[in-house]
Order: sequence, then C-alpha cells, then structure tokens
Amino acid sequence: MNTQANWGIHTLVKELRDIRVQSLETRERLNKPPKLPSRKKLTQILEGLSGALFPNRLGRPDLRDEVIDYFVGNTLDTALRDLHEQIHRELHFMAEQKNVVQLTEYDAKTIVRKFAAQLPRIRKLLDTDIQAAYQGDPAARTPDETLVCYPGINAMIHQRIAHVLYQLGVPLTARMITELAHSSTGIDIHPGAEIGESFFIDHGTGVVIGETTVIGNRVRLYQAVTLGAKRFEQADDGSLVKGNARHPIVEDDVVIYAGATILGRITIGRGSVIGGNVWLTHSVPPESNITQALLRSELIP
Amino acid sequence: MNTQANWGIHTLVKELRDIRVQSLETRERLNKPPKLPSRKKLTQILEGLSGALFPNRLGRPDLRDEVIDYFVGNTLDTALRDLHEQIHRELHFMAEQKNVVQLTEYDAKTIVRKFAAQLPRIRKLLDTDIQAAYQGDPAARTPDETLVCYPGINAMIHQRIAHVLYQLGVPLTARMITELAHSSTGIDIHPGAEIGESFFIDHGTGVVIGETTVIGNRVRLYQAVTLGAKRFEQADDGSLVKGNARHPIVEDDVVIYAGATILGRITIGRGSVIGGNVWLTHSVPPESNITQALLRSELIP
Amino acid sequence: MNTQANWGIHTLVKELRDIRVQSLETRERLNKPPKLPSRKKLTQILEGLSGALFPNRLGRPDLRDEVIDYFVGNTLDTALRDLHEQIHRELHFMAEQKNVVQLTEYDAKTIVRKFAAQLPRIRKLLDTDIQAAYQGDPAARTPDETLVCYPGINAMIHQRIAHVLYQLGVPLTARMITELAHSSTGIDIHPGAEIGESFFIDHGTGVVIGETTVIGNRVRLYQAVTLGAKRFEQADDGSLVKGNARHPIVEDDVVIYAGATILGRITIGRGSVIGGNVWLTHSVPPESNITQALLRSELIP
Amino acid sequence: MNTQANWGIHTLVKELRDIRVQSLETRERLNKPPKLPSRKKLTQILEGLSGALFPNRLGRPDLRDEVIDYFVGNTLDTALRDLHEQIHRELHFMAEQKNVVQLTEYDAKTIVRKFAAQLPRIRKLLDTDIQAAYQGDPAARTPDETLVCYPGINAMIHQRIAHVLYQLGVPLTARMITELAHSSTGIDIHPGAEIGESFFIDHGTGVVIGETTVIGNRVRLYQAVTLGAKRFEQADDGSLVKGNARHPIVEDDVVIYAGATILGRITIGRGSVIGGNVWLTHSVPPESNITQALLRSELIP
Amino acid sequence: MNTQANWGIHTLVKELRDIRVQSLETRERLNKPPKLPSRKKLTQILEGLSGALFPNRLGRPDLRDEVIDYFVGNTLDTALRDLHEQIHRELHFMAEQKNVVQLTEYDAKTIVRKFAAQLPRIRKLLDTDIQAAYQGDPAARTPDETLVCYPGINAMIHQRIAHVLYQLGVPLTARMITELAHSSTGIDIHPGAEIGESFFIDHGTGVVIGETTVIGNRVRLYQAVTLGAKRFEQADDGSLVKGNARHPIVEDDVVIYAGATILGRITIGRGSVIGGNVWLTHSVPPESNITQALLRSELIP
Amino acid sequence: MNTQANWGIHTLVKELRDIRVQSLETRERLNKPPKLPSRKKLTQILEGLSGALFPNRLGRPDLRDEVIDYFVGNTLDTALRDLHEQIHRELHFMAEQKNVVQLTEYDAKTIVRKFAAQLPRIRKLLDTDIQAAYQGDPAARTPDETLVCYPGINAMIHQRIAHVLYQLGVPLTARMITELAHSSTGIDIHPGAEIGESFFIDHGTGVVIGETTVIGNRVRLYQAVTLGAKRFEQADDGSLVKGNARHPIVEDDVVIYAGATILGRITIGRGSVIGGNVWLTHSVPPESNITQALLRSELIP
Repeated sequence: MNTQANWGIHTLVKELRDIRVQSLETRERLNKPPKLPSRKKLTQILEGLSGALFPNRLGRPDLRDEVIDYFVGNTLDTALRDLHEQIHRELHFMAEQKNVVQLTEYDAKTIVRKFAAQLPRIRKLLDTDIQAAYQGDPAARTPDETLVCYPGINAMIHQRIAHVLYQLGVPLTARMITELAHSSTGIDIHPGAEIGESFFIDHGTGVVIGETTVIGNRVRLYQAVTLGAKRFEQADDGSLVKGNARHPIVEDDVVIYAGATILGRITIGRGSVIGGNVWLTHSVPPESNITQALLRSELIP
Repeated sequence: MNTQANWGIHTLVKELRDIRVQSLETRERLNKPPKLPSRKKLTQILEGLSGALFPNRLGRPDLRDEVIDYFVGNTLDTALRDLHEQIHRELHFMAEQKNVVQLTEYDAKTIVRKFAAQLPRIRKLLDTDIQAAYQGDPAARTPDETLVCYPGINAMIHQRIAHVLYQLGVPLTARMITELAHSSTGIDIHPGAEIGESFFIDHGTGVVIGETTVIGNRVRLYQAVTLGAKRFEQADDGSLVKGNARHPIVEDDVVIYAGATILGRITIGRGSVIGGNVWLTHSVPPESNITQALLRSELIP
Repeated sequence: MNTQANWGIHTLVKELRDIRVQSLETRERLNKPPKLPSRKKLTQILEGLSGALFPNRLGRPDLRDEVIDYFVGNTLDTALRDLHEQIHRELHFMAEQKNVVQLTEYDAKTIVRKFAAQLPRIRKLLDTDIQAAYQGDPAARTPDETLVCYPGINAMIHQRIAHVLYQLGVPLTARMITELAHSSTGIDIHPGAEIGESFFIDHGTGVVIGETTVIGNRVRLYQAVTLGAKRFEQADDGSLVKGNARHPIVEDDVVIYAGATILGRITIGRGSVIGGNVWLTHSVPPESNITQALLRSELIP
Repeated sequence: MNTQANWGIHTLVKELRDIRVQSLETRERLNKPPKLPSRKKLTQILEGLSGALFPNRLGRPDLRDEVIDYFVGNTLDTALRDLHEQIHRELHFMAEQKNVVQLTEYDAKTIVRKFAAQLPRIRKLLDTDIQAAYQGDPAARTPDETLVCYPGINAMIHQRIAHVLYQLGVPLTARMITELAHSSTGIDIHPGAEIGESFFIDHGTGVVIGETTVIGNRVRLYQAVTLGAKRFEQADDGSLVKGNARHPIVEDDVVIYAGATILGRITIGRGSVIGGNVWLTHSVPPESNITQALLRSELIP
Repeated sequence: MNTQANWGIHTLVKELRDIRVQSLETRERLNKPPKLPSRKKLTQILEGLSGALFPNRLGRPDLRDEVIDYFVGNTLDTALRDLHEQIHRELHFMAEQKNVVQLTEYDAKTIVRKFAAQLPRIRKLLDTDIQAAYQGDPAARTPDETLVCYPGINAMIHQRIAHVLYQLGVPLTARMITELAHSSTGIDIHPGAEIGESFFIDHGTGVVIGETTVIGNRVRLYQAVTLGAKRFEQADDGSLVKGNARHPIVEDDVVIYAGATILGRITIGRGSVIGGNVWLTHSVPPESNITQALLRSELIP
Repeated sequence: MNTQANWGIHTLVKELRDIRVQSLETRERLNKPPKLPSRKKLTQILEGLSGALFPNRLGRPDLRDEVIDYFVGNTLDTALRDLHEQIHRELHFMAEQKNVVQLTEYDAKTIVRKFAAQLPRIRKLLDTDIQAAYQGDPAARTPDETLVCYPGINAMIHQRIAHVLYQLGVPLTARMITELAHSSTGIDIHPGAEIGESFFIDHGTGVVIGETTVIGNRVRLYQAVTLGAKRFEQADDGSLVKGNARHPIVEDDVVIYAGATILGRITIGRGSVIGGNVWLTHSVPPESNITQALLRSELIP
C-alpha cells in the first residue's frame, strides 16, 4: 500500500497553533504549559493502593504471611511517591491559575503524609462495605467475591480514597480518581460526598451522587439512582454559585431502589425505603415508605 | 524534585496488618491466602475465545483459509489452558471456604472439557444474535459491523460463555466474566440468566437482567431496561434466601423499550410490547401492548 | 499442576469450521477474509488526534513553545497514516459487500485529506464545549480540568471527530469511534448526529442520541437522557427503512434534565427546559418548560 | 526539576535537514524514503521460526501432542507473513538503488514459498548440530540443553535460515539475521557461508566466518577462530572486487582450536586438527595436525 | 499489499511433524513434552536478585532508608518464587531423562532455601569484586560506576549466583544464567568455576573460563583470556569422559593479560604475571613473569 | 504446584541490611541514596538520537519529506529532555561523592545545549564512517545497509555521541553509552578516545580501544584489535595514576588486521599496515608494513 500521500501537515500545524494562541489555552501561558495530573498514572496509583489495602485479593495472589508486609510496604511506597508527584502537579497548576506565589514542596508532602495516615481507616470502612455487599445480595457466596467483581465495591474503593484527598485540598486529583471508577463502573460519585459505613450499591450503572451529598450508615442503593441538585443558585452576575450544600442528606438504614431521583438539599429520614423510579424533591420523615403512584398500564388490543 | 520524604511506612504497614488480622480476611487463613480467579487473565481468555469463535473478525485480520484452523486450534488451546487454571482457583477457593476436602484436579479438567464441547453451540447462538442486531437496527449496514461495534453483541458473547460456566458449577468465574462486559458496555446480565436465540439489546447502557431471568427467542431490549427481583425473601433468621426464582420470564418475540422496569417472577406473554419507562410487577398475557399512562406535561408560561 | 489434559481440540476445530462454512460468514468469501477496521488501532488514533488537538493537556505534559509544533506535526502524521489504513479497510470491506469494483487508493487518501482539513474547526467547536462545561457545572474550577476528567467532553471529542468521518462516507469507522466513547463514558451518541457549539453533557451515563438528531447551540443535557426514534418505519417487505429522519430536533439554548426521554422527529423549541424523567413524543414551542406530572408519593406508615 | 530549557531545536532541525539534503542519503530520493527491513521485526520472525522448528523447547512449553500442529501452523503463518513483508522491502529498496523497474509482488511471494519449503531440511541439519554439540562438550548433559543455552546452536539457527534467504536473493535480510546472532553470541558467520551437517562451535565469542567459506561435515570450532580473506582484490579503478571466492575451504571432520586464524582460499584437508592461535595462510593436506611453533616463555626473575 | 498467498502450510506442518517423530526429540516422549527452564524468566530473576543485592544502584533509584527493606524483601520473594519454578522444571526434566521416579516438590524448595541463605555471602564477595575493579582500572572514578557499567562486574554477579546453584545440583539453570552474561558481555565463565574474592576482568570480551577452573583471591584478567581444557579424555568407547578436573588452577594475586591462553590442569603460582597472547600449557611457579617470545616484526620497505 | 514455602526472608533482609550498613555503600549516605544514570533510559535516548540523526533508516520507515522535520524535532526534544535528567543525576552523584556544594541546574542544561549543538557535526562524521564501511567491505552492496546491520557503525554512533559527552564533563554517562554498544557489538571503545573521520571496524568482536587513544582519518580495523595501555603508572602510594596519555596514536590511513595488539603511548605512522595477531609495543614510522614473524607450523604425520 502506497502511503506517500501528503496530508497538508504544514497548514494544519499552523492553523492549530493559531487557534491555540487565540484560545483561552495559551493566553497567559506561552512557555508555561500546564502540567495536569495524569489519568494513566492515577490508574496505577489506585491499583497500588488497592493492592496495599487488600494485598492477597487485589495485590499479588498467594502472598504468604512471611512476605506480606514487604509487599505492602513496598507497594505503598511506590504508590505514595507517585501520588506525591500528581498532587504536586495539581498544586502547581492551581497556583498558576490563581497567580499565586509558587507553593512549596512542603504542601504536597504534607498532603501525602496526611493521606497515608488515613489508609487504615479507609480499609476499615471498605471492610464494612464488603460485608454489606455480601449480606445485601442473595447472589453473593462469599465476601471475597464482592471485592473482585462487584462494581459497587470498586467504586467505593475509589471514592473513599478520593474523598480523603478532596478534604486535603486536591479536588482535581480526587475528581480524576472518581472518574476512573465512573468510567469502569458507570457509577458517578463525587469525591466530595460524605458516605458512612456499610454502604452498598447493587448493579450501579447510572448512579449519580453529588458533591454535597451526605449519606449515613448501612444505606443501600440500586442502579440509576440520582442524588442530585434541584437547581443551581446563580449569583447576581448570572454565574453559578459554587460550593453551597445542594444535594440530599440520606440518613442511616435507608434503601433506595433503582431509578429513583432525589433532588435538592432534602433529608431522607432514617430507615426509609424509596421505591423504584420515584421522583422526590422534598424531605421525608424517618421510616417513610415512598412508592411511585401506580401507573395504570393500558392494554391495547 | 526532592522526593526523600518519609511517609510513615512502618506505622502504616503495622496498622494495616493489625486490621487484616482482626478482620474476616485472615481469621482462619494465615498462610492460606485465597487465590481468586484473575480479572486480567479472564480478559485475555475472553479475547482468545472470541477470536476462536470469530477468527477473522475478532481474531487476526486476513486469515486465509489455509491457516484458519491452525489459528483456531492454537488460540483455543491457550485459552482453555488458562481457563483451566482460573477454574482450578475457584474450586480450590470454594473448597477452603466450606472446609471441604480438597477437590481433585479432575474436577477442573472435566469442567473445561464440558465447557469446550459447548463452544460450537455458543457460536450458533451468537450467529442468531448478530443476525437479530442487523435486522433490528436501521443503522446497521452489515451483520459484520454489529460484531465489531455493538455493545449488545459484546455483552452476549460474555454472557453466553459465562452461562455455560455457571451451569457447570463455577459461578464466581462466570460472574467475573459478565462483569467484564458490564464494565465495558454498561449492560449487566447475570450469568445465571437463561436467554434464547436471536436476542438483541440496543444501546444497552443501564440494562440489568437478574440471575433467574428466563428469556425466550427473538426478544429485543433497549437501554436501561431492568428485569429484576421485586423483593428478596428472608429466612426466619433474617438472612436472605438465596437461589429461588425471583426474576421475570419473558416469552418469545417480546419487545421491551428503554427504561422499562419489570420486577418479580412474572411472565411477559409471547409477542408483547412493553413501552418505555413502564413499571411492571404483574404478568401480562401474550400479545399485550403495555404503555405508560400518559403523563400530562404542563406548560409553564 | 498437571495441565496435560486433552480438551478435544480436533473435534472443536472441525465443528467450528463447519459452522463457519454454513454461516453467513463465509458463504461467499472463502479466502477473501473481511478485514475490518481495528478497535485497538482506532483507540490509538483517537489518542493521537486528541494529543494533536490539545497538545499540552492530552498530549505530552510540559511541552515548551519551542517544540510544540514538532510534537503536533509528528503526532498528526502518525495518526493520519494509521487512520488512512483503517479507512482503506472499511472502503475495501464495503466494496466487497456490495460486489462493487475495488475502490482505488485515491478514495481513502481523499477522505483523510478532507478529514484533516476539518481538524481546526473541530478544535474550535471543542473549545466551546469545554467553556460550556466549565460554566455549566458549579464543581468545575478551571476549563482545563473539564478536558481531563469530564466524560461529556471525552464523548464529544470522539463524536465530533466521528461525525466528520461519517459525513465523508466511512460510517463504520465513525461508529467504532463513538463506541469507544460509549464504552468508557456510558454516553452513546451516534456519529450521524449534528451537534452545535457549546454542547454540555453532565455525568452522562445512559445518554443516547440517535443518528438523525439535530442539536443547536448552547444545549445542555444530563445523564440518562434519550433522544431516540419513536418507532421504525417498515418497508412493504417488513424490513426496516434505513436512513430517514426519525430523531428529535433540539433548538438552541435548550436544557434537558436527567432521565428525560424524547422520541421521534419532533422539535424542542429554542430555550425550552425539559424536566427530569419527562416522556415526550410531540413537539413543544420555544421557551416551553415541561415537567413531569407530579407523582403523588404515598406514605406508607 | 524545571525542564523548561530551550535546546535550540529549530536550528538543529534545520542543520540536520541541510546535511541530509547534501549527503548521499537524499540525493536522488526526496520523498522516496528507503524502507529497509526492520531489525526488530526480524527478531520476532526468528523467534517464530525457531518456535515452529522446535515447538516444545523454543516455542511454548508444555505443548501436548493434541495441539502441537496447531501451534506450528499458526506460528509459521505469522512468521512467514512478516518475513514476506521484510523481503518485499529489500526487493523494493534494491530496485530503487539500481533504478530498476519496480519488482512485482510475485517475487517476494516466490522467495517466501521457496524458503518455507526448505524449513524441514533446516530442521534436520540443526538436529545434527545439536547432536554434535552434545557429543562434543563434556559439560553437556542432554541434547536439549544445548538447544536452550549454547550460543553456537543459536548462531547456527540464524545462519542456516539466513543462508537459504541469501541463496534466494535477499542478502540484506539474510545479513541482518546473522547480525542478530552476532550481537547476542559474538559469533559472526556470513549468511553466504556454506556449512555441512553436525557443525559445532564451542564458546564462540570472536568467531568470524567469511562470505565464501565452505565447511564440510562434522567440523568443530572453538572461540575466536577466524576463517577470513587474506586480502581483497582490487579492480583497475581501485575499487574492491566483490563476490569472488576468497575464504577457506574446510573439509569434513576438521577441528580448529581457539584463536586460530585461517585466511584466503586455501583448503584444510579432511580430518586435520588446527591448534590454538595458529596463523595459517596455505592449504594443508588431509589428516594434518598443525600446531603453533612453541613460543619459548622467558621467566623473568 | 496483497498478502493472501499460500505458503504451503499444511505440507510444512506435516513434514515438521514427521521429523519430530523420527528425531530424538519425541522418541520416548509423545505427550510428555520437556519443560525446560525459561531464558526470559531467568533474565527477570537475575534482575530481581541483582536489585535485592544492590537495591539503590541496580534496584529502584532513590530508595529511602525508610522503605529499602520492604523493597528488598518483596523483590527477593518474587525472585525466589520464580526461581523455585525454574528449578522445579530442571529437576523434573532431568528425572524424566533418567527415567528416575518423579522428584518431590521438597527438593526444589530445599535448593531455593539453601540458595537464599547464600545471598549475603554472594553480596560480600561481589563487594570485593567491585572494590577490585575500582582499584584496578585508572578510568574508574567511583566504585559505584563499576557496578552499573563494567561488564566484568555484570558477569560476576551472574557467575557467583550460578555457581551456588551449580553446587546445589541444578547445573542447567546455572548454565543458562551464565549464558545470559555471556550473551551481554562476551565473557563466558562456566558456573562450575570456583573463584575467590576480589576478582576483576577488564573489558572482558572473549574471556573463557572452564568448568573445573579454580581461581584464588585478587586475580585480575583482561579480554580474550582463555582458561581452558587441553584435550578431552575419551573413554574406551570413544565418548568423552565428563566431569574430571581439566582446567587451570590460578593462585592468589595472579595477573593475566589480554589474549593469553592457558590450557589444562596446570597451576599458575601465586603472584605470577602472564603476558598478553601467551600460550601456556604447563604449570609455572609462584611469582613467575611469563611473556611471549618477542616476535620480530619485519619492516617491508 | 504448592508454592507456600518460606524462604527465610526476614533473616535474609536483615543480613543484607547489615552488609549494606557495613559496606562502603552506605557508610556516608544513609537516606542519601545515589541516583545513578539509568542504563535503560540511556538505551532509549540513544535510539532517539539515532532516529533523529538518520530519520528514515533508524527512525520511522517511510517518513515523507512533508513530515520529516516534525519527526526530527519531536524526537530530539524527547531525547534531549531525557538526557538532561541523566546528566543531572551524574552531576548530582559526583557532587555528593566529592562533598562538593550541590551543582546548579544550570550545569546540566548547559551541557545538554552544548551537546545538542554538536549533533550536526556528529552526523557528518558518521556519514564518513558509513561511506568507509561501504567502500571497505566487498560484501556491502549499499551504504544504507551498513547503517542497519554493521556492528562497527553501531559502535561508532554510540562512541561519537559519548565522546562529546565525555568532553563536556559527564564521563559516567558517556561510559554507560559506550558500554551499551560494547554489550551488543563486542566492540569496546572508551568514550575518551579521539577518532578521526572515515573510521571503519569490520566484524569487530573483541576490539578494545583505550581512553587516551588518538586515531586519525581513514583508519581501518578488524576484529580483536587492541589499542591498549602497556602498563599502568603507579603513584608513590601504589595507587594508579589516572588520566595520563597511555594508549597508542594511530595516524591517517592505517590498516590494522585482526587480533593485532598495540600497547602503550606509541605512534603508528601514517599509511602503515599492521598484520594480523601482531604484538606491537614500539612506534613505527609512516608506511610501515608490520607482519608477524612467520610461525613455522609443524606437520605431525
């Protein structure tokens, strides 16, 4: 096959350069290219942290007790060093965005150190999630299998790690981590969401949980549930107000069935059951049992 | 960049060990690490089996008739040997869970041999699915293209393979295989589901089909359809009753439009059409045409 | 582990051959194996094109102004040469399907050249999408981060590239490209859809946009929105009529909330707001505000 | 680390272009880049051919009798197709060098077909080499181990394959193949050399065997032996005369010890033994036993 | 490029099968394929062991004191487990060769455990070699650089590891390891050779050191030195007698310059200096200074 | 296979730590791990530089004139950035060795910039080497093929690049680069050697050229030639004197045949021919023709 064709590369390169120069991208930063965290590197980091948290099941199979700590220590070190570089990139990028004086190396290190100290707590929380998945799904035969094949567990490993990073001040890295889970599970949980222990999402595709959502203990969700904002507040200049509480509070022991849409800063009282496809924009008291008004189905002869 | 920071690895390693020792993970199995099937290896196995089933389109391009059988035989051998090891892991893992006497090597081999014997039947079923996709989608130009780009076909390759494994007694391996498809297509079909020929899922994101679902021939589904359980039966001790028939029976020639939710051990009679977003928890007779009660939309001035 | 078992490979190979010979696959093409475009190669091509369009953020980090054009030119060349081969495969495959005289090399080259010339326009459109994402989501801190972690932006990079290819006469390559995005984002936009500038999809899982959809400028969509066909027209012989306009027209400045289903060749007038979960099969005038009839939720004590 | 430095890329690119334009490289071939065979691809091809010739020991371990032919057939097909492309490149390149009319595709195919037909003969010759290595080295415990770890065997696999290609008219591809062995073994045998059966080179580093060398059966060589040209004939214009017989003929059953240098078109008679470090530029009759004149070593107190 | 040619694969596969069946390869082992140690795997194992022995310089750069033991422990575990499998293969292969009853798993484990216990001693010996290289070469600036770029050090890492394995009864694995070094350095030291501390080989290409060689402390060698056998003893039946002492003994503090050839079970007395290109087949007393008889060079006008 | 054995890792890790602490390695640098240049990275850098110098033949095949500069610029940038990091490592490492104040980033950048400016000159010199190889070997058909398969050319690409780096003050990086060539060609040229244009080494295995060697124009060498030091000068304290001129000067148009050993700071006069295996330790005037005293070979009947 003769592939000697000319594609007009010179013109293309020039046109693309002109666009870059005009666009927001380069307005203030010729020769100061933004160096964003790397999606690929974060994928590796999450694999490393998952392996360190659950060495035998997500790390290396067949680790004997003799060597498990060496594996954990070594895997943690690699993952934390790589995470440090990604966090450094975010801090540097944000500082440039804000024309802030360059952050010191100290900040990235402090964040990694504080993050690392939370890993045991993250592991404990994930153990409760695993147990909840095992107990909540009649198809699960052992807790172990939920760890290797339930998308809900995979999503929570990402979110619980990302949530700590979000709280420590690196929201972009955190968001990129939850997007990794979104991409592979279809479950979209914002890293800002606060989620209690023993949380279980079954099937999961299409679940959306917003930034300021608060979820209690022992909550169970099914696929396509939305915990979203009702509407966005606008400032006087028409721009969106960012950061205010705008997503639901879900108290302990609530179950929300597939396709339910719950919007706004409302409270779902403890122990409530929200039926499938329900559309809910107001608070409900504890122990409520909300179902969709039955739709009459018409038989057409 | 100076990366000489200390992350407190010693403390972390110790804390994570303490958690492992206390948790369910290691309670009874210090030095008996569970060796679960490997997601990565199963991905390769499915690529191999897909290539052997459809050598030119999913295997190696440009295979001449002279060599196609060599490719198929060699690819099958690799895939079946690798599958044998994964099945061996599951049987071994399950035996330890149940404190059963160690299974013999014989079992894993028998399962692989029985599975292999089903591959021609799987191929024939998939041919009917491909034909159904081609006929059911006005955008499809050739049957071949449905094989290389329709997520519904991809999901069915995984499910039909996993279903045979599920029936042969390796449900974890089977589940991990359907979860591979779930992750890349958003279509979540349990390996236990029994599905007839000429099955077509269009778009597919958000489809959930439960473990005991039974689907006839020539059924068509759109995105976000749920064939689920209405509620889980509980035993006297409050634990979930596992394994009983709890998902719908969908008879031949049924069409179910996007977003329909069909729950419980009900029967959708042959030839029925279920409209988009319908919520259905009772059986309907053959040739039913169910649509959602029309929702009045209010115009707000 | 003794893996010397026999799997019955000879029989399997023979049976699979018999099926291939009987099936549609080989009926007319023994020794003329179809060589379809490669999903793996298209993934690389899209990475290359993304990197050339957004060199610093999706290409190589830390590109100085001195070398950025070298990177862009070199990356474009590789991507376009590889694309040329994929397009050649599709044209060749389609020619064989139709028993058409073999297409000349000239066609594939012309298509690549015309496609390349559209890249600057694609970049400009994507810049408007990025700006729309930044302005439309209160959680976004900078436009840059929408480019590296918003699935809606990722989906639009794929669709805008695929759309140009679709118009140039290689619909299979185009479809395979949008399916790459579908698989990683859960957003399924047909390459045929015509989409204006400043288009933003938030969360996105479950969005389906059909082949003949027309979308204006500054439109915003949330997860699980369907812009689909109401029903497929059938020809007298029962086969589906392909290619006619059957999906909605969405005018400028429309917002469509999560889960809304809009079917058929209807028009959503400029500036309208379609509420969550709305089911809509008729046109609505400009500035309409459609919400679901409020479903009464019954409290069960 | 700040890596924003400018390296002066623009100037460099320009200077390198100027040199290319002036140099022999591009004199007549702007836009006709020479496409030479690829060293990396040839490495893979040799791995494939080695695996097909010795499937269990150099191919895939643990191939059962049931599948070995599938492996061989499939591996051969891949290797021969890749080889075909490399040969095509050489023929094309040489045609351009000579301003010859473009060669037809037919030539490359014919060469590959003729080459393939020689593979069984190559295998038989290599079996005699393996047996010779086993019998000739007291350290060898089994014939199999000479195949996996003796550099002399590795070199002969390459040379015997390359020799057939050399005879079929693709000397560059042939030379690149023997250079692969030269690089990994330090044994430099020209593909033109004609070598009989049961040939054994022990240790091998530094062995050089020239283009027109002829070696009989059951010959044994040690490291650093040179079978070279004495001097190069010059044509009247001072250029070297290419292709005439200028290297030794070594008859059957000769042994040549380490470091011996044998130069020119001389004949080493059948059954001769040439001692270590001997320098030999004249023929010797059969059964000769040549040793270096003993060098008196002087003891210095 | 049309690559649809037929290569005659069927005939080839059949012919190669016939040869295999007739040849020594399969005579007694249809369906009992020999599973030899893997060169590729041994390469990885040597990288692992080198990294564990010299963690910062051959392992991972920038290991802080906090994590170095985790790296060493984890790397050792991986390398030793992989080595265990290779050793198991050799024992199994050898048992089949000798029609010996299958060896138990116990043997391979014992060998690995005994090997592991020698690693600290190997490290200490290598430290003396590194120091010798630094002191012996005027071009060396630091001991560290000899470790990362001197082929002599690389060869000794391989040989000292292989020697322990050779002594523990796995000579094939040992030989394959020294051949790895032979291939990359041109230095061919048999794993059987016994070598004292502070051993230094400069340049090294072409060095050959035989199986029963014994080398004292502080010996220095240059390129192309051979410590070989004079001739092989033959048994009455003409086969080679294997295993008897047939290579030189080199006592402490000897220096041997480039190209010297020393053959047979002779002794080079302590402190001797052997000049370049010397050919030596008899013992020399301590403190000897052997030089080549000066060759008169003739000037040709 | 049960691989649950314990290898005694804890003891091993501890013993290896004790050795490290005692040894020279860590005496002064706990927590200051030396970060040496990386062999693997330098391999990539050399591939990049080779590709930039000879884009079509060692870079990417089939580069059209339209894109060749983009390839060169982009490849150079990557290679130079990576080289910058390796140089930075060496400078940092050396500074620590000497307890020198930390070098500034400026130094590494200056070195890279000066090195880059030499690349056109390196390319021109290599063009003369290629031409010399083509003219010097009767087996060479085109200059191009010497570039892709002659080890002598490969060695000179490495040495000419390394020599510039050696002169710029990074001798360790330079040495590691020539060792890459040594490993793959068996040709060991010190980066310090000064070599004129049109230099050709045929076969090459075993060639050694020392640090202070000076070689004129149009010199030709064969395999196993040594240009070495006669003896090392010792300082009063017995340590070796480093850096003084101790290797031969070879004037223009000299030919040195295989196995010749030339030692000490002697001069081989212009136009001389040194015969094979000659041992030479004194200067010879121009146009000398040195051959080995003919060794009488004794025929043993």
